[in-house]
Amino acid sequence: MPLTPEQRAEIDASRLTPSQTSRPTVPALEAILFTPTELLDHGFVRVVDYMGDDGAIVQAARVSYGRGTKKVSEDTGLIRYLMRHRHSTPFEMCEIKFHVKLPVFVARQWIRHRMANVNEYSARYSILDREFYLPDPQQVSAQSVSNRQGRAGALSPEKAAEVLDLLRQDAARCYDHYETMLDPEGYGLARELARMNLTLNTYTQWYWKIDLHNLLHFLSLRADSHAQYEIRVYAEAMLDILRAWVPITAQAFEDYRLGAFTFSSGMMSVLRRQLAGETVLQSESGLSKREWDEMQAALSRG
Amino acid sequence: MPLTPEQRAEIDASRLTPSQTSRPTVPALEAILFTPTELLDHGFVRVVDYMGDDGAIVQAARVSYGRGTKKVSEDTGLIRYLMRHRHSTPFEMCEIKFHVKLPVFVARQWIRHRMANVNEYSARYSILDREFYLPDPQQVSAQSVSNRQGRAGALSPEKAAEVLDLLRQDAARCYDHYETMLDPEGYGLARELARMNLTLNTYTQWYWKIDLHNLLHFLSLRADSHAQYEIRVYAEAMLDILRAWVPITAQAFEDYRLGAFTFSSGMMSVLRRQLAGETVLQSESGLSKREWDEMQAALSRG
Amino acid sequence: MPLTPEQRAEIDASRLTPSQTSRPTVPALEAILFTPTELLDHGFVRVVDYMGDDGAIVQAARVSYGRGTKKVSEDTGLIRYLMRHRHSTPFEMCEIKFHVKLPVFVARQWIRHRMANVNEYSARYSILDREFYLPDPQQVSAQSVSNRQGRAGALSPEKAAEVLDLLRQDAARCYDHYETMLDPEGYGLARELARMNLTLNTYTQWYWKIDLHNLLHFLSLRADSHAQYEIRVYAEAMLDILRAWVPITAQAFEDYRLGAFTFSSGMMSVLRRQLAGETVLQSESGLSKREWDEMQAALSRG
Amino acid sequence: MPLTPEQRAEIDASRLTPSQTSRPTVPALEAILFTPTELLDHGFVRVVDYMGDDGAIVQAARVSYGRGTKKVSEDTGLIRYLMRHRHSTPFEMCEIKFHVKLPVFVARQWIRHRMANVNEYSARYSILDREFYLPDPQQVSAQSVSNRQGRAGALSPEKAAEVLDLLRQDAARCYDHYETMLDPEGYGLARELARMNLTLNTYTQWYWKIDLHNLLHFLSLRADSHAQYEIRVYAEAMLDILRAWVPITAQAFEDYRLGAFTFSSGMMSVLRRQLAGETVLQSESGLSKREWDEMQAALSRG
Repeated sequence: MPLTPEQRAEIDASRLTPSQTSRPTVPALEAILFTPTELLDHGFVRVVDYMGDDGAIVQAARVSYGRGTKKVSEDTGLIRYLMRHRHSTPFEMCEIKFHVKLPVFVARQWIRHRMANVNEYSARYSILDREFYLPDPQQVSAQSVSNRQGRAGALSPEKAAEVLDLLRQDAARCYDHYETMLDPEGYGLARELARMNLTLNTYTQWYWKIDLHNLLHFLSLRADSHAQYEIRVYAEAMLDILRAWVPITAQAFEDYRLGAFTFSSGMMSVLRRQLAGETVLQSESGLSKREWDEMQAALSRG
Repeated sequence: MPLTPEQRAEIDASRLTPSQTSRPTVPALEAILFTPTELLDHGFVRVVDYMGDDGAIVQAARVSYGRGTKKVSEDTGLIRYLMRHRHSTPFEMCEIKFHVKLPVFVARQWIRHRMANVNEYSARYSILDREFYLPDPQQVSAQSVSNRQGRAGALSPEKAAEVLDLLRQDAARCYDHYETMLDPEGYGLARELARMNLTLNTYTQWYWKIDLHNLLHFLSLRADSHAQYEIRVYAEAMLDILRAWVPITAQAFEDYRLGAFTFSSGMMSVLRRQLAGETVLQSESGLSKREWDEMQAALSRG
Repeated sequence: MPLTPEQRAEIDASRLTPSQTSRPTVPALEAILFTPTELLDHGFVRVVDYMGDDGAIVQAARVSYGRGTKKVSEDTGLIRYLMRHRHSTPFEMCEIKFHVKLPVFVARQWIRHRMANVNEYSARYSILDREFYLPDPQQVSAQSVSNRQGRAGALSPEKAAEVLDLLRQDAARCYDHYETMLDPEGYGLARELARMNLTLNTYTQWYWKIDLHNLLHFLSLRADSHAQYEIRVYAEAMLDILRAWVPITAQAFEDYRLGAFTFSSGMMSVLRRQLAGETVLQSESGLSKREWDEMQAALSRG
Repeated sequence: MPLTPEQRAEIDASRLTPSQTSRPTVPALEAILFTPTELLDHGFVRVVDYMGDDGAIVQAARVSYGRGTKKVSEDTGLIRYLMRHRHSTPFEMCEIKFHVKLPVFVARQWIRHRMANVNEYSARYSILDREFYLPDPQQVSAQSVSNRQGRAGALSPEKAAEVLDLLRQDAARCYDHYETMLDPEGYGLARELARMNLTLNTYTQWYWKIDLHNLLHFLSLRADSHAQYEIRVYAEAMLDILRAWVPITAQAFEDYRLGAFTFSSGMMSVLRRQLAGETVLQSESGLSKREWDEMQAALSRG
């Protein structure tokens, strides 16, 4: 249960008094504004504010005086053209602000995307809640052998349960001692020091604001199958939000980025030979085994 | 007259249909949304969109669930504290988007502020209008002798008129030939080439989006007396917009940044001696002549 | 003749006194350090400083204590893997600094790449030289009809000569009046004002420093056939410099980026059908005419 | 003991073979290149590479052809002018690359400085060492009452010892279980999951590259008395490195930034009254109690 009744009440209060605005407004996004999408065991992502819509991209690309929308079909064509040819600046003209609750080890991956604005809850200034991430048993997975930075299948239910016991007990004991050290009647240790005793699955939270171009870049990396599951679930939730916010852009993004595959100059040579009817073997393709496999996987995905 | 009737009609059409939104909304900014503030002879700046308000800064600084506003006095205190101690991230949580029309030589200064998003009208793709900046006669100023990158007083009315004639004739002739070279019935030269014949006072326009922290940085440099007059008028117009948008932040900015002065460690030593009643001469101050003058100027400004 | 004897002497003096360093050093780049590659009629690009080499990328990717180089073949494999999978951070660990002389209208395109450091020669502070770009007659090209932001074939020699006359005369006259207005014995106009009379083909110069990741991004856009010729010649010269500096990275870049083509999800479907032996028509491909043509062009390029 | 003999051997090997270079070279920095400055109980910072020197700042500011150095006194004057007037771009023309070993909770503060390049040791890909930060007993401090994000004096030696026992035992147990979970003969848990059991005082390491302007900004915040002790020791070590690398810039930085104090417009009014001989009370100063105290503290520091 990620949200307390008090937090829900605070969120609900935000929604009570809509205002009039002349700004571009997206009803489908207004409908989910402030509402948390719950993730993992205690996490969430929710939209706190946004600027712009599909039309704002067109408007900026044309540097126009008015809303710039002529026909939906023309706007769609332009947005798809901009996406296909990797024009980035018109997409930078939309902005979105999220409130995210996430485990610290996920936050450490996430923050590597520098082209965003962040305000994180400060454990120097405040005390973190007793909340830490424990994976679903099906997510308690073995180290992959083929991929040094990936995971293979789930451990057996018994082993998973034992691992979860270790994680739970260590996180709980560390948090207990965090409280012990902080207790003003006891040690009264400085918060900026006590926090170092917490485990990396402790939840933190932040406000995170990013423009649409950089959000798409984030999603292309983090909604990808190579991303760690625990950050991918956030990216996938944000992909749903994207579809509500800028549906034309979201569709273009899925067609030209998420579902796309880049062929190297060597792969292009192989492809040309194959399309000409030639049977090409890896050994005579000029591609490394790894590249060959990546190409075959992309072509067979269907 | 910077705007044609068609452009005005386009702008007016944007305002016709306000929407309902649950986002933070600033009535004083809605009132001037889309409306150009006219500047120089053909320029303008107008707000096209915005995200956040004073409350959003507080909300982000507290990473809160709701609007986060307790009492106005507390919010004011927090914003002033953040400004005084140069906390930048909460101010990054607000964003504003402008449409600006400005001479090319001003655009070249402006673009040096990299932490912003820009879509400029493309002279590769489109044809620029016949509009070039000619200063007011009072702004036709002599080179400063003391400041290599500044201007002194205005030229005499006669000399100013002659200078303006040169500027007007050269810009007009260059534009005439730009049209001659572009004419599809004549040379039909590529737009991307023909544009090189235009003078640097030709007007261009762009959409420019920036977060509040970086906007304040821009304003602190460009609303300053050392900035060139032709960019300063834009900064001053944006300072008025700032006051409408985030009045508490704008006041803190004027108190702690625009009206502030930084004393170096050497100046602090002098100050301490002076406050202790000592009369300090420049020659025995440890400050260079230039630093001494800067300090005296700041103290006498009143 | 882009360089005066005085400038050449200054450059030559830089090279006289090599120092000892323990930093990664690239002999092939040292050999061309400071030497301008001359471009267009008055432009140049030259390397002023650099940090890192191919090995530094490997070292950073491994966060290693020493130079990190095991075998060249392993390093090559790692760099190619990083390039193929768009890992950006290890490439950010190399840095290069250029001194570039270029026409203002090219500088305006160039500066849009924000992830770089720039110091431009200041026309507020100093007086620009009488140098403006006049294209080679073969580059005086007609506007493309099919591509709104491109050029078609060259104008006839007669028309090109007339266009060049217009460009030359206008630039010269504007520069004459720039001098007239600046003359301290005459108008003595402020430099920051007088410069607005110059045409956009006037040469400027700057120091430009960028990390290798962002340099590759710049080159992928500006060494491309869609880039305007006048910026492309700079990008191509920098590509040669890249090959001298980081040869393994340069080769990977050409294989996986410059020579690559990205197939959208729709194109991938078509490709799978074609490889299965089916003949696919554009009308039944699900691709727009434009996408279809782009795909066919990529496949036939060979 | 932060470095193993193997790591020392790797570092020593880097230094064996100096090369000839025509690049700006700083003997005082070459002398400490690669050598770790040891910090905290297992941390270090060491310079891995650098670009530029004091002269390079002058050279860029002048956009000059040669080294640009005329007289040392002129260069010093220019650098001090640039620092005093907050010109940032010439300082961006120098770059430095560090290898840093630091506790995760320090890394989380540090990474908030986005204008830098980072390659961190990956705990998805590799296994972290059994090293965690335990403060010196004198640094085991109580929570400050007056400053919510600061610490007060040290706990009693007995209490400090008990706190250190808790920290040591929890970190050790968590690391033991990390190994248990990773063991390929046992659970064989994926590294990307097992790492979440580690405590926030675990050491990580990274390559961190930054330009001189942004380094000064980092140091102005992190070498400050308000910074947490555990990051301040790194900043102070880097300040020593700065003095070796760019001595003129370092001195200007200490005079105009570190030792400087900014008076708000309200403080300036008070100052003017005081210098005119008036006795001003806080109650009639127009300053808040907090601002008044900050001003008095700055003036009495001397």
